[in-house]
Amino acid sequence: MPVAEALSAFAPARRSPVVTTAPALGVVPAADVVCGEQLPGWARATVDGYAVRAADTYAASETLPALLEVTGAVTMGRAPEGEIRPGSAMAIPTGGLLPPGADAVVMVEYTTEPMPGSVELLRGVAPGEGVLQPGEEAGPGDVLAPAGRPLRAADLGLLAAAGITELAAHARPRVGIVSTGDEIVPPQTRALAPGQVRDACAPALAGLVREAGGDPVLRGIVPDEPEELERVLGEAVAKDDVVVVSAGSSVGARDLTVGVAARLGRVVCHGLAVKPGKPTLLADCDGVPLIGLPGNPRSALVVFRLVGMPLVRTVAGITAPPPTAKVRATLSRDVPSAAGRLDVVQATVVDGVATPRFGSSALLGPMVGADGWFCIPEADTGLGAGAVVDVELY
Amino acid sequence: MPVAEALSAFAPARRSPVVTTAPALGVVPAADVVCGEQLPGWARATVDGYAVRAADTYAASETLPALLEVTGAVTMGRAPEGEIRPGSAMAIPTGGLLPPGADAVVMVEYTTEPMPGSVELLRGVAPGEGVLQPGEEAGPGDVLAPAGRPLRAADLGLLAAAGITELAAHARPRVGIVSTGDEIVPPQTRALAPGQVRDACAPALAGLVREAGGDPVLRGIVPDEPEELERVLGEAVAKDDVVVVSAGSSVGARDLTVGVAARLGRVVCHGLAVKPGKPTLLADCDGVPLIGLPGNPRSALVVFRLVGMPLVRTVAGITAPPPTAKVRATLSRDVPSAAGRLDVVQATVVDGVATPRFGSSALLGPMVGADGWFCIPEADTGLGAGAVVDVELY
Repeated sequence: MPVAEALSAFAPARRSPVVTTAPALGVVPAADVVCGEQLPGWARATVDGYAVRAADTYAASETLPALLEVTGAVTMGRAPEGEIRPGSAMAIPTGGLLPPGADAVVMVEYTTEPMPGSVELLRGVAPGEGVLQPGEEAGPGDVLAPAGRPLRAADLGLLAAAGITELAAHARPRVGIVSTGDEIVPPQTRALAPGQVRDACAPALAGLVREAGGDPVLRGIVPDEPEELERVLGEAVAKDDVVVVSAGSSVGARDLTVGVAARLGRVVCHGLAVKPGKPTLLADCDGVPLIGLPGNPRSALVVFRLVGMPLVRTVAGITAPPPTAKVRATLSRDVPSAAGRLDVVQATVVDGVATPRFGSSALLGPMVGADGWFCIPEADTGLGAGAVVDVELY
Repeated sequence: MPVAEALSAFAPARRSPVVTTAPALGVVPAADVVCGEQLPGWARATVDGYAVRAADTYAASETLPALLEVTGAVTMGRAPEGEIRPGSAMAIPTGGLLPPGADAVVMVEYTTEPMPGSVELLRGVAPGEGVLQPGEEAGPGDVLAPAGRPLRAADLGLLAAAGITELAAHARPRVGIVSTGDEIVPPQTRALAPGQVRDACAPALAGLVREAGGDPVLRGIVPDEPEELERVLGEAVAKDDVVVVSAGSSVGARDLTVGVAARLGRVVCHGLAVKPGKPTLLADCDGVPLIGLPGNPRSALVVFRLVGMPLVRTVAGITAPPPTAKVRATLSRDVPSAAGRLDVVQATVVDGVATPRFGSSALLGPMVGADGWFCIPEADTGLGAGAVVDVELY
């Protein structure tokens, strides 16, 4: 099954719950966050200078300055004392509240102080110049942060400015991670007995789950034993929002996972048109996506990036995912591919040239040493040296 | 001072301490992480099939299969029982340990079982085919994860495979954030009194600090009062690895910050050739960078991206920062700029066309609504409609 088809076959029924939370980087608003007041609430100076009536300044120039009486100074953080009458001005700092009667601010750079208590304007201002108007940033009902877009740093600033210290957000989805295989032992195992392999999949998948905005739940290592696997996966499906199982590398181990998945839900896809990653299993367990990954860690990570991360984002309520870092590069050599299959190729990129890194899919090295990866689409039978590819960077 | 010069004028003396920690996404190794053993430790099958002596298979073909005696089966996670003698084979699953005597694995797809206890090979294999050799992933002394590159998901897998469950890493730097201004009140303030403004800078800067790999330490809001500012900044410089202060928007508030910075350390730069962001202050307080940002939140965020985030990464020990998401686009209209000044322009990008978003630097809106930003270099006097720009995406 092609990757796009497999993804569209899924409509995860269960979403992570909506919770009330403080704004923070990556928090996903469950609804548009709306402003409740005018921002700013009052007209403010955007420059240091003098608050004036613009009409008093029209004729002002360097050769014929306008002379105004200075009746006071605006203090930061306070309401101005007094008002601006025709022929008068008040000193005002950037951010200061515009006094009643004033409609503009003349920058201090265009003024001189011929004597205490008066100011000469060397330039005229139009009404509104040097002033931030009430509501110019936002007004009641304006959307400050859209639903489904993880909060960014600037959003945090705008929400704070509007006094929004909590919002309705999607809880980070729980992603259960199960490792299977009689040969798999925990990474803490100091000395391996012959045939044992430390669990590389679970820690790496946990990293990708976090990248996608989920919370990994490590559910341990299960031997190749159907009852035990069904018990652990059943518990994961009951408690988690997405479940991932590294389904073993041998045909026997994979068949076991397929059997258990078929008992827990509806198998949507068994065999994905992607290399590496063909032995991928997708099942819908009452709306909870169950993803059976190939046993080779590298294949598992490739498939989880293609299929798992988009599913985690969907369940997380993310409709506007953060942008990914990509670089356009020319291929250093021919890369063959079979038609009808998406090929994922690891690559290093130096000076705009992408060099593919090959090696057994049982090795993590080609991925660890790569700068990123690119795809050869299903329709293509390979790319020639010099072809332009978009490498998605790690 | 140009941005590049300001950055190179800094050589932060104090680095965050080196700590022992478990591998996790974004952890920065303080030294190359080195493998202590052979990975894999034993030769393993990379396919399901039969472990054989390659010499027994040379002549095998579909028309003239080689017949071998099957002497047993390899079990996952265990040392094989028995060995492969000339003319014999053992069934082996992917990941199974190669039995003594065998030097290749024939895929099950190229075999038939004419009768129990024997196998026919329809194809020959070369020595090493279908086998992952000991040490093929890594050997003793090989670098698994380089110093200074934040750990990625695949790194977590490789470290787990090698049994590395703790490593020497740079502690995340503490970045003290101080807000100043008589007009500034906490975001929690429900109703603003005339002239008051909620603190938008600190929460937004905290977000950027996290993005850069630091831990924000919110040190509160300080009024425009020199003794109090010196006390708070002095404490921050003593305890934190980097200190950021939003230096107020008015000339008076900025002068106050400059005075305090000059008493706490050496002022490296006062006025940066960047728009927005000119009133930026950089001081070196005994190796701790003190960054005084403009009072306008948008200007503050622009400068912190350009100067603060690189400094935080340096202090964090990051020498290979994660890639940034960029997109190449054509400008929809002319954008003027003054020579000798770096202009940072907010932009939306649709279908490869970048549309600049302008507005008072007192407004966060143009940044919140933008997809990213691009720079007009110091040497340029503006860019024309149709010019190609690289927009860095938020």
